[in-house]
Amino acid sequence: MAAEIVNPRSESADRTGQEGGAEPLDSFDPVFALHRGGKMAVQATVPVRDKDDLSLAYTPGVARVCTAIAERPELVNDYTWKSSVVAVVTDGTAVLGLGDIGPEASLPVMEGKAILFKQFGGVDAVPIALACTDVDEIIETVVRLAPSFGGVNLEDISAPRCFEIERRLQDALDIPVFHDDQHGTAIVTLAALRNAARLSGRGIGELRAVISGAGAAGVAIAKMLVEAGIGDVAVADRKGIVSADREDLTDVKRELAGFTNKAGLSGSLEQALAGADVFIGVSGGTVAEEAVASMAKGAFVFAMANPTPEVHPDVAHKYAAVVATGRSDFPNQINNVLAFPGIFAGALQVRASRITEGMKIAAAEALAGVVGEDLAADYVIPSPFDERVAPAVTAAVAAAARAEGVARR
Amino acid sequence: MAAEIVNPRSESADRTGQEGGAEPLDSFDPVFALHRGGKMAVQATVPVRDKDDLSLAYTPGVARVCTAIAERPELVNDYTWKSSVVAVVTDGTAVLGLGDIGPEASLPVMEGKAILFKQFGGVDAVPIALACTDVDEIIETVVRLAPSFGGVNLEDISAPRCFEIERRLQDALDIPVFHDDQHGTAIVTLAALRNAARLSGRGIGELRAVISGAGAAGVAIAKMLVEAGIGDVAVADRKGIVSADREDLTDVKRELAGFTNKAGLSGSLEQALAGADVFIGVSGGTVAEEAVASMAKGAFVFAMANPTPEVHPDVAHKYAAVVATGRSDFPNQINNVLAFPGIFAGALQVRASRITEGMKIAAAEALAGVVGEDLAADYVIPSPFDERVAPAVTAAVAAAARAEGVARR
Repeated sequence: MAAEIVNPRSESADRTGQEGGAEPLDSFDPVFALHRGGKMAVQATVPVRDKDDLSLAYTPGVARVCTAIAERPELVNDYTWKSSVVAVVTDGTAVLGLGDIGPEASLPVMEGKAILFKQFGGVDAVPIALACTDVDEIIETVVRLAPSFGGVNLEDISAPRCFEIERRLQDALDIPVFHDDQHGTAIVTLAALRNAARLSGRGIGELRAVISGAGAAGVAIAKMLVEAGIGDVAVADRKGIVSADREDLTDVKRELAGFTNKAGLSGSLEQALAGADVFIGVSGGTVAEEAVASMAKGAFVFAMANPTPEVHPDVAHKYAAVVATGRSDFPNQINNVLAFPGIFAGALQVRASRITEGMKIAAAEALAGVVGEDLAADYVIPSPFDERVAPAVTAAVAAAARAEGVARR
Repeated sequence: MAAEIVNPRSESADRTGQEGGAEPLDSFDPVFALHRGGKMAVQATVPVRDKDDLSLAYTPGVARVCTAIAERPELVNDYTWKSSVVAVVTDGTAVLGLGDIGPEASLPVMEGKAILFKQFGGVDAVPIALACTDVDEIIETVVRLAPSFGGVNLEDISAPRCFEIERRLQDALDIPVFHDDQHGTAIVTLAALRNAARLSGRGIGELRAVISGAGAAGVAIAKMLVEAGIGDVAVADRKGIVSADREDLTDVKRELAGFTNKAGLSGSLEQALAGADVFIGVSGGTVAEEAVASMAKGAFVFAMANPTPEVHPDVAHKYAAVVATGRSDFPNQINNVLAFPGIFAGALQVRASRITEGMKIAAAEALAGVVGEDLAADYVIPSPFDERVAPAVTAAVAAAARAEGVARR
């Protein structure tokens, strides 16, 4: 039946540009052509061909399912799509490298995220771009939406607001809440670092790392590296190394100063790089070649800024044993899509009430493990299109959820 | 790739009942078997097979689309799914005939609604069951969600709260907001009434109608019949005919008393039926056979309560020229699915800023028109599975939106 009906989306393709609307940007640009009409749709997974179908899927049959859930609320996970659907929630304040562009302009990214959830993890996802930026308002809105979803992926919400929003939502809700810009990046970084360390025959405990950037990703990476037993890690923001003696720290950075930088470094990022084993760039700035040259022999350079890495790979290779970027056109791409689909697929599979540190570490180890015996300087992390990735991460996260006591099945 | 990955939903089917979870209700009940795992999914409409696809659909390509929307906000309708997706919003307070069963228990109905939107109108729809029932909280939540959606279908929200919520949301938002329990029912009822009147050679202006039920549907039907030029209409609640001399009226019923019941009737529903031309039941009560017998010759009885009509069709046929119900197992089913998919498809097609009275009347007329020359006492309204319905309603609604100046393309 649907085939007979005018689709508002295809109508859109015909009309725009003809009636004083937008120019057809897509006529000269393949990116716009691809995004025309959006990138996703909803589909029914049960038939609605005749009145018998309708009486099962809708009234009067559906009333019995509603009644069963009203009597036993946990059945909502068995008899609706709740336990397979994630809300991808943003307020549009920190979208890609574009900054605060608002909810509507963030939607193409949220839709992209949603289709990656589906493609790589088999997880349904719905973009929810909010018309509010107040922390309390975002939290109360997500709490009110939560009955419809099995998990919440926070996305592109600016720091430091993102930290409080995630923490308070985790406390308020009994479903996983995960800020991918923090933990997705941290998980993939840790996986790459584990493999780089293995390649060089060292343990992570022997390494001193320097992170450029104290936003969502930088803070989460620092926490995760400490959790994983890094020898030392210092984090630099635009004003230099985050250290306890600085007077200008936000609460989050003050906390960061408390558990990082055991060496007590201060001063510039470049100064901290002298003799360091690992550089992790999540800042968007650039690092002088001299500073890279001053790192320890056999260093790892993960220059993840997009589209312009903090250190160009050609320069990094002059001094470093392992080089990774955020770009798909160089080897060793640190790409969040390696983590978030499997993380949520695993958490939803066992109906985890939250995503714990242990589940994140397990995800990183599973991801690192996919590389196996093929480990090499230009292969410390799998390709996003490696079909082994999502099942490995899913299984590890589900098992860790059970081990940590947050699984509910 | 997705085929290789464990789907949390199919996992669900394997495990429930084996690990202390729910008993497998579906093993002995086809309704539960059908609803297992939910009734809908998300799908990507663009390929994500390799890194070239990823660079177009996601980073870095997507950034250009975001930037374009940030500069020209109306482009969100061209380059995301916003203009083809509707939020199906409830608070779970008036679900089917079950009443206030809460958001989780309402989800099977909202999912059912969503797949009907898709199946019959080609419209994507997402169930949003809210964990709040306060009028102000519902309104502010929907306003915050609105950037992600092209329209809002309010569903199963109890009266009289539903009236204020719809009105205030219509004022606050520039996308269509439509409470289907009110207007969907009213549109289909008007269509059936127009055809019944045509069959009997009378104009609607010659008819006196009595509505049993002053909830969402009853109030909306009364308004729409007056708008369409009904001779007179009286509405009865549990205490009898709504008339200006009653001391116990809510604001909504007081307003209703102002524009209905020109005859100045008071007393019981049954009293009002004496000599009436039309009975419209949206109450769930029952009407005594004597009262039906007292109606005017050639009366129309639309007994729409589900599953038990206010007047059984066998009884109604003894006295009435045309009988309709809400049930699929009798002729002339008054089913909202005849209206809401086409209403939203038409509104979205022209990016209407709201759904006006004129658009609703046009929908009713288009729906009535599908019956055409096949009009008969047992065929005053088409089947929900008549493939002509949604295109006819869609086209009529889109044209009316243009005529009324609320179309934006």
